Amino acid sequence: MALRARALYDFHSENPGEVSVRENEVVLLHTDQDIEGWLEGTNSRGERGLLPASYVEILKSDPATSGDGNRYANIPSVPSIPSAASDAVPSFSTFSQHPGQHGYQPSQGSDEDWDEDWDDASTVADEPAGIGGLHDFEGNGPSTYRVSTSSMSRAGNAQQAKSSATVSRNLNRFSTFVKSGGEAFVLGEASGFVKDGDKIYVVMGPYGPEWQENPYPFACTIDDPTKQTKFKGMKSYISYKLTPTHTHTQVNRRYKHFDWLYARLVEKFPVISVPHIPEKQATGRFEEDFISKRRKGLIWWMNHMTSHPVLARCDVFQHFLTCSSTDEKAWKQGKRKAEKDDMVGANFFLTISTPAAPLDLQEVDSKTDGFKAFTKRMDESVLHVNATLSEFARKQIAGFKKEYQKVGQSFKALSQVFELDQQAYSVGLNHAIAYTGDAYEAIGEFFAEQPRQDLDPIMDLLALYQGHLANYPDIIHVQKGALTKVKESQKHVEEGRMESAQAEGVRDRCNIISFATMAEIQHFHRIRVRDFKAQMQHHLREQIAFFQKITGKLEEALHMYDQA
Amino acid sequence: MALRARALYDFHSENPGEVSVRENEVVLLHTDQDIEGWLEGTNSRGERGLLPASYVEILKSDPATSGDGNRYANIPSVPSIPSAASDAVPSFSTFSQHPGQHGYQPSQGSDEDWDEDWDDASTVADEPAGIGGLHDFEGNGPSTYRVSTSSMSRAGNAQQAKSSATVSRNLNRFSTFVKSGGEAFVLGEASGFVKDGDKIYVVMGPYGPEWQENPYPFACTIDDPTKQTKFKGMKSYISYKLTPTHTHTQVNRRYKHFDWLYARLVEKFPVISVPHIPEKQATGRFEEDFISKRRKGLIWWMNHMTSHPVLARCDVFQHFLTCSSTDEKAWKQGKRKAEKDDMVGANFFLTISTPAAPLDLQEVDSKTDGFKAFTKRMDESVLHVNATLSEFARKQIAGFKKEYQKVGQSFKALSQVFELDQQAYSVGLNHAIAYTGDAYEAIGEFFAEQPRQDLDPIMDLLALYQGHLANYPDIIHVQKGALTKVKESQKHVEEGRMESAQAEGVRDRCNIISFATMAEIQHFHRIRVRDFKAQMQHHLREQIAFFQKITGKLEEALHMYDQA
Repeated sequence: MALRARALYDFHSENPGEVSVRENEVVLLHTDQDIEGWLEGTNSRGERGLLPASYVEILKSDPATSGDGNRYANIPSVPSIPSAASDAVPSFSTFSQHPGQHGYQPSQGSDEDWDEDWDDASTVADEPAGIGGLHDFEGNGPSTYRVSTSSMSRAGNAQQAKSSATVSRNLNRFSTFVKSGGEAFVLGEASGFVKDGDKIYVVMGPYGPEWQENPYPFACTIDDPTKQTKFKGMKSYISYKLTPTHTHTQVNRRYKHFDWLYARLVEKFPVISVPHIPEKQATGRFEEDFISKRRKGLIWWMNHMTSHPVLARCDVFQHFLTCSSTDEKAWKQGKRKAEKDDMVGANFFLTISTPAAPLDLQEVDSKTDGFKAFTKRMDESVLHVNATLSEFARKQIAGFKKEYQKVGQSFKALSQVFELDQQAYSVGLNHAIAYTGDAYEAIGEFFAEQPRQDLDPIMDLLALYQGHLANYPDIIHVQKGALTKVKESQKHVEEGRMESAQAEGVRDRCNIISFATMAEIQHFHRIRVRDFKAQMQHHLREQIAFFQKITGKLEEALHMYDQA
Repeated sequence: MALRARALYDFHSENPGEVSVRENEVVLLHTDQDIEGWLEGTNSRGERGLLPASYVEILKSDPATSGDGNRYANIPSVPSIPSAASDAVPSFSTFSQHPGQHGYQPSQGSDEDWDEDWDDASTVADEPAGIGGLHDFEGNGPSTYRVSTSSMSRAGNAQQAKSSATVSRNLNRFSTFVKSGGEAFVLGEASGFVKDGDKIYVVMGPYGPEWQENPYPFACTIDDPTKQTKFKGMKSYISYKLTPTHTHTQVNRRYKHFDWLYARLVEKFPVISVPHIPEKQATGRFEEDFISKRRKGLIWWMNHMTSHPVLARCDVFQHFLTCSSTDEKAWKQGKRKAEKDDMVGANFFLTISTPAAPLDLQEVDSKTDGFKAFTKRMDESVLHVNATLSEFARKQIAGFKKEYQKVGQSFKALSQVFELDQQAYSVGLNHAIAYTGDAYEAIGEFFAEQPRQDLDPIMDLLALYQGHLANYPDIIHVQKGALTKVKESQKHVEEGRMESAQAEGVRDRCNIISFATMAEIQHFHRIRVRDFKAQMQHHLREQIAFFQKITGKLEEALHMYDQA
């Protein structure tokens, strides 16, 4: 059964069996089922071969073919994303919609460019084309990530070349499982010396595995975004004052520092959802609204960083929070150390210490599937709530305000007409009606101002969660990859192609990844319940105060008639 | 200077000097200044003569010509009526927009057709064509009344023929001054025997002349509109139970009875603004909404009837309120008496008893002008408030409700997604969010239901006032006509063409009309202040209760998070 698909990007075949396509080229696919991220197809020149599933969109899917089998491997059809909703999101989303944690190109700043004026505009320019411009909903599963060739590290190939394990390697050089180091770790290729201080503990909590709590919890405020200049005013940037509660010492940081830190964290932690930093913006960076919005985004981000038992304690974050802004030498030292950290990717898993009793991998598999379904549904719902609230905000700012003001103006006009009548007994009424008109105009303003108080905060929260939800497909992919390797190794043992000791090693390492994934899922649910509860309460309190303010205004107006 | 005008109706010349025109015929006018309601023009056949100003609309008025002189006599240009506003009115107006009190064709029911089944549909058919279909704003001044030939009584001609006074007669046989009997009275032609019980007193109050208060004030409730059938169910009508507080005896009345009464009152009282009864409606007469709306309209009408010192006490109204619904003979007797009442029109003025000290007619003239300007502005403003409130009601019923419900639904959908996660610590939150969603849906309903509570009553009031405001141009016209006659008679005395005693008679009779007009204006302002104060207070109280209800709903939702 042939399906028509359109190439979203250029793809240059680099290995035998791959087929090149140009952007917008129509390709015939032989199936819509990808094999670890690859699809078999024939390009417009009649060449047949594999091409990355994420590089194409299927043009017209026969509904009969997509209902069966493994939904996970299916390419989701584009129309499942409500277009009105996705249109509405960018204007309200504070957080960047990276196509996936690992699809994000980390800023690899050297010491040299650290000292250069990396302003936000230049970091926007650094962003690879094809990522910065995307704002589609990308949380459906790994096969939907759209990554451009230019942004892809081809590290997978190198790893593939040196592989010597008997368990088959992943064909897909774009696979998160490969890129994250998950595959290398499961196959026993990771090695490094783990200091006691680097150890990350997963413990059994009342609801299953969880990250060991931070024994020294702290928070960090972000205040006073101020415009700073360099080179006699030629270059400007915004500096934020950060004050962690465990040091009480203020440090100044710029957006580029957050960006650098974010890149380090993404690189280091393969199964931890690093909160996205507020998105980059090329223009209007010094406008008050933007600064206030970015600061709020950074506050949310910081909240999620300090709430995470692993992220909160990691060296690079502590360096970021505590290194004096004026001690350039200490800063560079910490920066270099972070960039040379060995315990990243595959080696990160070496640092994880788990409870003695291994997990039931079948249960892990099923829980992972459950979480996958949950995040997909939550992502859709968050998108929908976001679109609804942004529309509601827009209506209040424009329509509701206008309606109340028109009523106010018509009452005021009536009171002016009534003033034409010089009867003494009409004076009080005229004033009271004019006052009522003013009250309605004020209520119109209240409606226009209100979304900032009680809708924007929810939308900021939703944007942060959209970032997390975009991270989870990668995490799930790593977990699923590890589980697949366990199954493969079992089969190989049965077929006598692998020693059972080797297979046990695969299973043990998959157990470690599973503990980490389960702990991360648990953490997600905890902060989700905490955050949504707090935000809904805040929203309702603000709404109550808002309607009470309206009532107060109307009561004032009503009292005017007592003397009328 | 020639102006182009279009004939709105056929006009058949009946007297020398008049010129016939057909509907839509283009006429050249020699001036836009009417002479007592007549314009000089040339029709398409080149015939020159007078035609009623109200029969034509000027097609393109040169702005230079309309800015000067007597605005009163100017033909207002049609575009001064905001079209959007006038479109909105009919759907919300409970009261008929008669083109003027005296333009309304009273139902001249005989005893015979009283006993027939006058249902509302048949009275609709009775309405003269060209009046029932009009709902334009017609309060700009007498020259804008559009009256169709078929509905005009040509009584003016008869009076004109028997006139023998030296003061010139009004050329315009359509003039309200003529039709009302005002001219005949001023010229001393009215005569009749006034019984003491028929006397109507104008007294001097703190703010000027006023109708003597009703020493036995009363009110009247209108309840339980019930569907009644006649002829074994072949004919149906709605019967209302009226209970006046001064008799405590319930009588049953139908809409046709109100309609008959209204016709009697309009005929009898030339300078009193008889409140309009709710408009006729051909279809949907038995629908609950319509019955409820009509009942509200009748209650307002009754309120204005019983509040008016003259109308409340008049015989025909008392007959209507007190005659037993089952005593057909008594009813017919009272009905026949009312229809044969001599003290109508010109003779009505004979019944007025004024304070001894005459009014300063200059001041009356100026006050009349002031009131004319006031009613014109108020009418525009009422139209504007009505349009604004009806739009506001529409927005609340549709848009506001939809927005709150969409927010509620998105919260509920989110709570359903959250329920997919089986974590025990999430259950409370899920319930609370679902409850919040329900609360928003309920608030949406509150918004949709609210206009019925606090906007409809204001709009009902405005509709009633639109009826009054449509009456005033006629009343002002009678007053102005009387004042003009005084000036003319003075001039005639100066020219030696009239005895000064005769002129004094004119002045005395104008004084009587002036007292009545001033008392009526005073009454209007009194009830206006009373009604608008009460309605604005009612509106604000309802709005306050509404926002408190919303606040209560949100507080309930907030409490749900206490256990979450």
